[in-house]
Amino acid sequence: MKNTQSASAMPIHKYRPYRETLGVDLPDRTWPSKHITEAPRWCAVDLRDGNQALIDPMSPERKRIMFDLLVKMGYKEIEVGFPSASQTDFDFVRTLIDEDLIPDDVTIQVLTQARESLINRTYESLIGAKRAIVHLYNSTSILQRDVVFRTDKQGIIDIALEGARLCKAAEPIAAGTEIFYEYSPESYTGTELEFALDVCNQVIEIFEPTPERKVIINLPATVEMATPNVYADSIEWMSRRLNHRENVILSLHPHNDRGTAVAAAELGYLAGADRIEGCLFGNGERTGNVDLVALGINLFTQGIDPQIDFSDLDAVKRTVEFVNQLPVPERHPWAGDLVYTAFSGSHQDAIKKGFEAMATDAAARGITVDELTWAVPYLPVDPKDLGRSYEAVIRVNSQSGKGGVAYLLKTDHALDLPRKLQIEFSGVVQTKTDAEGGEVTSDQIWEIFQDEYLPASSPDDKWGRFELASTRTSSDMSGSTILLTELRVGDDMITAEAVGNGPIAAFLTVIADQGVEVKLYDYVEHALSGGGDAVAAAYVELDVNGTRLWGVGIDADISTASLKAVVSAVNRAVRSASSDRELAAV
Amino acid sequence: MKNTQSASAMPIHKYRPYRETLGVDLPDRTWPSKHITEAPRWCAVDLRDGNQALIDPMSPERKRIMFDLLVKMGYKEIEVGFPSASQTDFDFVRTLIDEDLIPDDVTIQVLTQARESLINRTYESLIGAKRAIVHLYNSTSILQRDVVFRTDKQGIIDIALEGARLCKAAEPIAAGTEIFYEYSPESYTGTELEFALDVCNQVIEIFEPTPERKVIINLPATVEMATPNVYADSIEWMSRRLNHRENVILSLHPHNDRGTAVAAAELGYLAGADRIEGCLFGNGERTGNVDLVALGINLFTQGIDPQIDFSDLDAVKRTVEFVNQLPVPERHPWAGDLVYTAFSGSHQDAIKKGFEAMATDAAARGITVDELTWAVPYLPVDPKDLGRSYEAVIRVNSQSGKGGVAYLLKTDHALDLPRKLQIEFSGVVQTKTDAEGGEVTSDQIWEIFQDEYLPASSPDDKWGRFELASTRTSSDMSGSTILLTELRVGDDMITAEAVGNGPIAAFLTVIADQGVEVKLYDYVEHALSGGGDAVAAAYVELDVNGTRLWGVGIDADISTASLKAVVSAVNRAVRSASSDRELAAV
Repeated sequence: MKNTQSASAMPIHKYRPYRETLGVDLPDRTWPSKHITEAPRWCAVDLRDGNQALIDPMSPERKRIMFDLLVKMGYKEIEVGFPSASQTDFDFVRTLIDEDLIPDDVTIQVLTQARESLINRTYESLIGAKRAIVHLYNSTSILQRDVVFRTDKQGIIDIALEGARLCKAAEPIAAGTEIFYEYSPESYTGTELEFALDVCNQVIEIFEPTPERKVIINLPATVEMATPNVYADSIEWMSRRLNHRENVILSLHPHNDRGTAVAAAELGYLAGADRIEGCLFGNGERTGNVDLVALGINLFTQGIDPQIDFSDLDAVKRTVEFVNQLPVPERHPWAGDLVYTAFSGSHQDAIKKGFEAMATDAAARGITVDELTWAVPYLPVDPKDLGRSYEAVIRVNSQSGKGGVAYLLKTDHALDLPRKLQIEFSGVVQTKTDAEGGEVTSDQIWEIFQDEYLPASSPDDKWGRFELASTRTSSDMSGSTILLTELRVGDDMITAEAVGNGPIAAFLTVIADQGVEVKLYDYVEHALSGGGDAVAAAYVELDVNGTRLWGVGIDADISTASLKAVVSAVNRAVRSASSDRELAAV
Repeated sequence: MKNTQSASAMPIHKYRPYRETLGVDLPDRTWPSKHITEAPRWCAVDLRDGNQALIDPMSPERKRIMFDLLVKMGYKEIEVGFPSASQTDFDFVRTLIDEDLIPDDVTIQVLTQARESLINRTYESLIGAKRAIVHLYNSTSILQRDVVFRTDKQGIIDIALEGARLCKAAEPIAAGTEIFYEYSPESYTGTELEFALDVCNQVIEIFEPTPERKVIINLPATVEMATPNVYADSIEWMSRRLNHRENVILSLHPHNDRGTAVAAAELGYLAGADRIEGCLFGNGERTGNVDLVALGINLFTQGIDPQIDFSDLDAVKRTVEFVNQLPVPERHPWAGDLVYTAFSGSHQDAIKKGFEAMATDAAARGITVDELTWAVPYLPVDPKDLGRSYEAVIRVNSQSGKGGVAYLLKTDHALDLPRKLQIEFSGVVQTKTDAEGGEVTSDQIWEIFQDEYLPASSPDDKWGRFELASTRTSSDMSGSTILLTELRVGDDMITAEAVGNGPIAAFLTVIADQGVEVKLYDYVEHALSGGGDAVAAAYVELDVNGTRLWGVGIDADISTASLKAVVSAVNRAVRSASSDRELAAV
């Protein structure tokens, strides 16, 4: 079969292979035969490199939420800002220190350029901190030497060495703070290796590292420019040649321009690095920094402790989406909404048999399934270990292939279901249409949707255990909401008052008082487009007495819609629990 | 500095390192010293592996749009479905053949399991095709042998060989069609290499490949299970040992579970593969197939012709988003909305100097900038080569850090701006507030927004060259819309009638008749939530006489809102062109 591909009109004459200017010659490389056996030192740079690349930079509140999340997950080195370049960053570092928010085992890191006024200001930001890493950088690449700094190699070395000396001289400004140093030859991947080595080695001599006070040498793929094996070769080349290597912590900082940052970090770590800088879910300039979540869970699936807690990945994702105001994509490794779903029959069948085999095996050996080695086809991790669950999606085509369930709900009823609710509802549709074959009409889908998620249209027909009769909310602008609600619970009417940071939070305590344990996982709302009065739809994902499921509410008042959604989920949980009991009684 | 990271509670006892069960021992590997010098053979599997993983599978219309796109971009081998498993897929293959939609130099590929009835049905789908690849697969992994097929190695070999024989026996069903074969040991990455080799070599013997009729051996990372160098080692190991290697096209099919599929494809290609299967933007099961766009543009930036046309990447993205009903993420390599933006001052400064240096260099040499080698810091590709543009984003904080521009427009005015409009508008805000320092109030932002994008509130104050007076649309359900519109153009009122596949398309021809060349790039709309009457906002990105910019329209009627958005963009373009002329005249 002849290859019929032909030349495109893409202007390839404008580009040169990386190796023509910046080759690494390392025929005796050893990294491809090595294996990862333990977690690297992590450094989370979400508050600096991540924040720097957001359209809407984080507010102080959002920064604080991110810092607390990183600490809670287990990150011990956290770059918290560029205090000399931004008053907001300066103030945030001061808040962390003045309000004593940094745990004893966590070290903050601050970035600075190699200029005197900036360096002094950096140390001012650190006064009173127990410990900090001062991260000094200057750009060393061929291109930046030519077009930005218009200087030669010696000029660049002078900037770096002068910066290092100024740092040491500024130490008394933050007397009492234990200072460690990190140096980055910025745009390292655009720098000749010999020159990068020369700069780093001269900087190391100034910082005079000791076993107790090592220096961090960070080699950033500021722009990712070649296949990841080339980065790994360069790291092994540098690692062999750095002076005082035993007192150097060799750090990686890969960006993802070519889509291979995770690989670059992993291969660079094999090549001798000790430490990796990155962001949760790969936020950062352009295509982002390397994704700390993917790196950590990749280790986990090999039986290596990432030393980071990923057990409630949805909560991490929700928080990061709020802080960054950027969604985590549906197919994002380990975290996306679609990564634990199986659509094809053969995958679903294999997964089912995998679960069955594990159950049989555990029973035969008299142990629990969780004591076994995980072995289910198409699921490289037990979703449960990350707080997720496996979903088999049965796709229902509407008549004459006009689109699937989600599409019809959107076009015919203006409901834009969150992905995970789409997945849940596909199962509901399947259960109710099994007898009738694979095709359903849009009207049938709408009937099933109403029946499952929305209250009965007739007021006499009591839909579930709970029903909202009235609500009133008030807020005194202190950040908490008071909710007054009238509620039918079974056959009784009750009134309840509760306080929360919003109406949903308040309402969950009302529900909890009725003996139903509820935790909120996700909340999405949108206005229903189309003519007539404005109506909003709210969707909530709850854990109700240990079962995770969705509820839907529709109302002209968005706040009421969200409470209706909670009622919908709780009623569904109660209903499914009671039908389980009925089945068990048969 | 002590490493204070500590053990997590993650259940690592459930997982084992990949190498403990499926090691590859290849100390004399050669791939890390090799370089990529030409494009592989590409095979696009969007219509099969991609479609298979969508919540809403593609309708026949959407399939057709995807097929046409792939052909137009230059893909010559396209897997179009699994016709024996799905009537929709079968019908689609028949449509392609019966309506003669397959160009002479394009070969369709169809997937089949190794079972007689499925194989015969597969050949029936191909009757009348000029040429086709029959892609036979069966699962070979340890885990699937144990829990799904409950058979030993010989049983798995028997399935493969019987399948291959049945294929050959079924050829007369599609007599006249030139048939080529592809064989995949599915779940290859979960299979012992020796066994995968044994199965492949026995299948090769049955297919009896020749130089004119090579066989494709496809080694899928059905689940990505190890660092990408391990996959590359396995590919080199297989490539050295496959029988009749000169008559074998060795193909890769990486999935992205660990986030390293692009790397696995690149390193596997270095290791001796000839061909890569993947999907545009990495659609596919779970985390997706390898991303053909990233792979192709990665080659392009090294001066290697991808043999695929990526010159209008936004159009490709828009089409794929429509077909898959999945967004391409903001930080997706080469294609995301944020990848050609620079936020930090030092990046913006370096980029500006890079552009200036290129202009100076070109002038000195008497050539155009496009004849030079691309060299701009932080931009690894000229965005123009992909139909994109570089954007410097100046971020504006509102007072007391309550959020940025986009956040305030959303919370205070219910406007949810598309990312690229957020970026454009940040520049507008910056220009208008430069004198006043970095902070602006929400009211100022809203004033600037109205002034820039929305018509003047007073009817006497003529906002721009065009103004909509009235519109009427009608549709006869044939798929085209007739638009009747009254329009102020300068000081004249005109009426115009036009036809298009929607009101926007029709309106663009009206505008073109007035001498303004307009092309639509993007269109987004949403309802404005909040009480009162339902109102919609529409956003369009247009190319107006060579300038790319956004327009905004707000109206109770969504169709009118979209036309107002077109007027907004056109008026902005006219205004900016005339202010350029005024400046030039000064």
